[in-house]
Amino acid sequence: MSRSIFEKPDGRIFVIDQNLLPFRFKTVPLDCFNDFIEAINQMKVRGAPLIGVTAAYAMYFALNEIPFEKNLKNDIKKFADLLLATRPTAVNLRWAVLKQLRLLSPRTSIKDAKELLLSNARKLAEEDIEQNKRIGEYGLALIEEIFKRTNETVNILTHCNAGSLATVHYGTALSPVYLAKEKGIPVHVWVDETRPRNQGARLTAYELKENDVSHTVICDNTGGLLMQKGLVSLVITGADRVAANGDTANKIGTYLKALAAKDNKIPFYVALPSSSFDFSLSDGSLIEIEERSSDEVRYIEGFHNKKNTKIAVFLDDSLVANYGFDITPTKLISAFITEKGIFRTEEIQKINSQ
Amino acid sequence: MSRSIFEKPDGRIFVIDQNLLPFRFKTVPLDCFNDFIEAINQMKVRGAPLIGVTAAYAMYFALNEIPFEKNLKNDIKKFADLLLATRPTAVNLRWAVLKQLRLLSPRTSIKDAKELLLSNARKLAEEDIEQNKRIGEYGLALIEEIFKRTNETVNILTHCNAGSLATVHYGTALSPVYLAKEKGIPVHVWVDETRPRNQGARLTAYELKENDVSHTVICDNTGGLLMQKGLVSLVITGADRVAANGDTANKIGTYLKALAAKDNKIPFYVALPSSSFDFSLSDGSLIEIEERSSDEVRYIEGFHNKKNTKIAVFLDDSLVANYGFDITPTKLISAFITEKGIFRTEEIQKINSQ
Repeated sequence: MSRSIFEKPDGRIFVIDQNLLPFRFKTVPLDCFNDFIEAINQMKVRGAPLIGVTAAYAMYFALNEIPFEKNLKNDIKKFADLLLATRPTAVNLRWAVLKQLRLLSPRTSIKDAKELLLSNARKLAEEDIEQNKRIGEYGLALIEEIFKRTNETVNILTHCNAGSLATVHYGTALSPVYLAKEKGIPVHVWVDETRPRNQGARLTAYELKENDVSHTVICDNTGGLLMQKGLVSLVITGADRVAANGDTANKIGTYLKALAAKDNKIPFYVALPSSSFDFSLSDGSLIEIEERSSDEVRYIEGFHNKKNTKIAVFLDDSLVANYGFDITPTKLISAFITEKGIFRTEEIQKINSQ
Repeated sequence: MSRSIFEKPDGRIFVIDQNLLPFRFKTVPLDCFNDFIEAINQMKVRGAPLIGVTAAYAMYFALNEIPFEKNLKNDIKKFADLLLATRPTAVNLRWAVLKQLRLLSPRTSIKDAKELLLSNARKLAEEDIEQNKRIGEYGLALIEEIFKRTNETVNILTHCNAGSLATVHYGTALSPVYLAKEKGIPVHVWVDETRPRNQGARLTAYELKENDVSHTVICDNTGGLLMQKGLVSLVITGADRVAANGDTANKIGTYLKALAAKDNKIPFYVALPSSSFDFSLSDGSLIEIEERSSDEVRYIEGFHNKKNTKIAVFLDDSLVANYGFDITPTKLISAFITEKGIFRTEEIQKINSQ
């Protein structure tokens, strides 16, 4: 497992270009503020926690674009706004950008600002890794409990990619899976392919293969039937933003799986760092849902004759709607697995006060 | 709108090769029994009602493969079994094959058999068209009622293709839409792309475009959010087989949309000829679910450089599960729209006795 964002000894920042996976593993440097914006926009980096850390580094690079230190705090806000506009649903992005902004005072020198923002970006990256390990341990207990009760392979369904590639390292939803595998608990993952960008088929399946975890790729349509057939022990997904009442924005289609889990009495967990909670929003209806390009639906990217190839699936005459996220109502969520422990809906406020 | 299966004046049977749509419209002749088997297996023809009529013609062509008329009724059973094995979930296939078999007695001559099976295949094709028109009229009343109440565009979500291409003509789920459009009621269709074979994006969108019906293609993950946002007035899908209690086998993913419709208090209708009911099965758990090739999930077909091109979406290392259908429990279905009228779950038995 490789870190999704890392510094080389010469100080350059590298990320994995996730658009090239699974057919090619390539790391690319982000050398200026614009490289960061592009990486987030083009989804070379994606996943709420990874976007957060990437944005923290981007704020540090923004300082290179500011010619005079007189209005530093004011000038950097423009760059902050550019970052915030890239992915409106991911709350970690805002959280990380605001964390960086708060370190600056109107009198901070550029030199001090650079030191402050770089060391804080590093700190957020390390914290992400630590948090994911703790999420993994709390989630492991849930998987272990099922295994002890049934003495059978634990079948975990997940949607999109909330693994190592969505974070700095280890992942949120997949972190418990990796720990279970390490501990010798037999696990198998049902991987939703996750249209339109197929992050499940392309990234989650890749990660699981790299870590030797048994898994099966399925169309997003399939999870309901698998639950009806008793082939799913539990569902774990990540989250992009959770409102104060527990309503959860996550990759489009998560809501449908949560409905099916409820209908089949299967536990449905959301694994996330506590920074993905947005206590300023009372419920999910207030979460802005990102609309993305119709091309993501109209064209599908894959491998043909050993080359990345994009095909059109249908005719240009048809309109397309492409919403990135949906809202899973908190009533469908069994509990939230965070680095601070496992919380049911009615306990969410405790996360805020811890 | 073209008929999906038709006879030319010289007696040859033609079908639309639906695998080439939407990028190419081509009709192909089916000249021997094996052509029919191949057309069904390769899904040149698909959709429960169309498969039924195609199978009826196939039984007529099977007679050409029987050298002696002595054991005609016995010999043709082998061909019937070959047909039944192609698509286990579609009950219309069985229904049509049995209808043909029942016309034969141990003493029927080949000449008489040919006449009987051909004229009955033609009759079933004509009946299908008539039934779909009636399904359309009953469904139209539901759409009209919503329009009169809201005075706004009626938004219909559909899954897979249960249109003209899934039947001989007009379709089941789309028949009411075409009639509403004809009548000047403003309608708009949300088209689930319907992975793995994308019959929604490829066939439903094509049909709607050809008939000038406003529509938008969406990923299968999207319907839940649209319902949450109040953008869906009703859902209409087709069915491959309905058990005596109303549990409905339809294209994989239908169940998830039915759950979302229920959660958002949106009516969910299943449109089908009464021949899609299987009164021999007490409930949906007894319906056999077809498993199909993993290649349908692993590879996606589309258009690239003006050529049909197949791309791999993910690595060969990952396993795939590909179930063709799921079961929508009858509790989630508002009513069944049939050629005999509209029936709620508790009224289904009336269909059997009519």
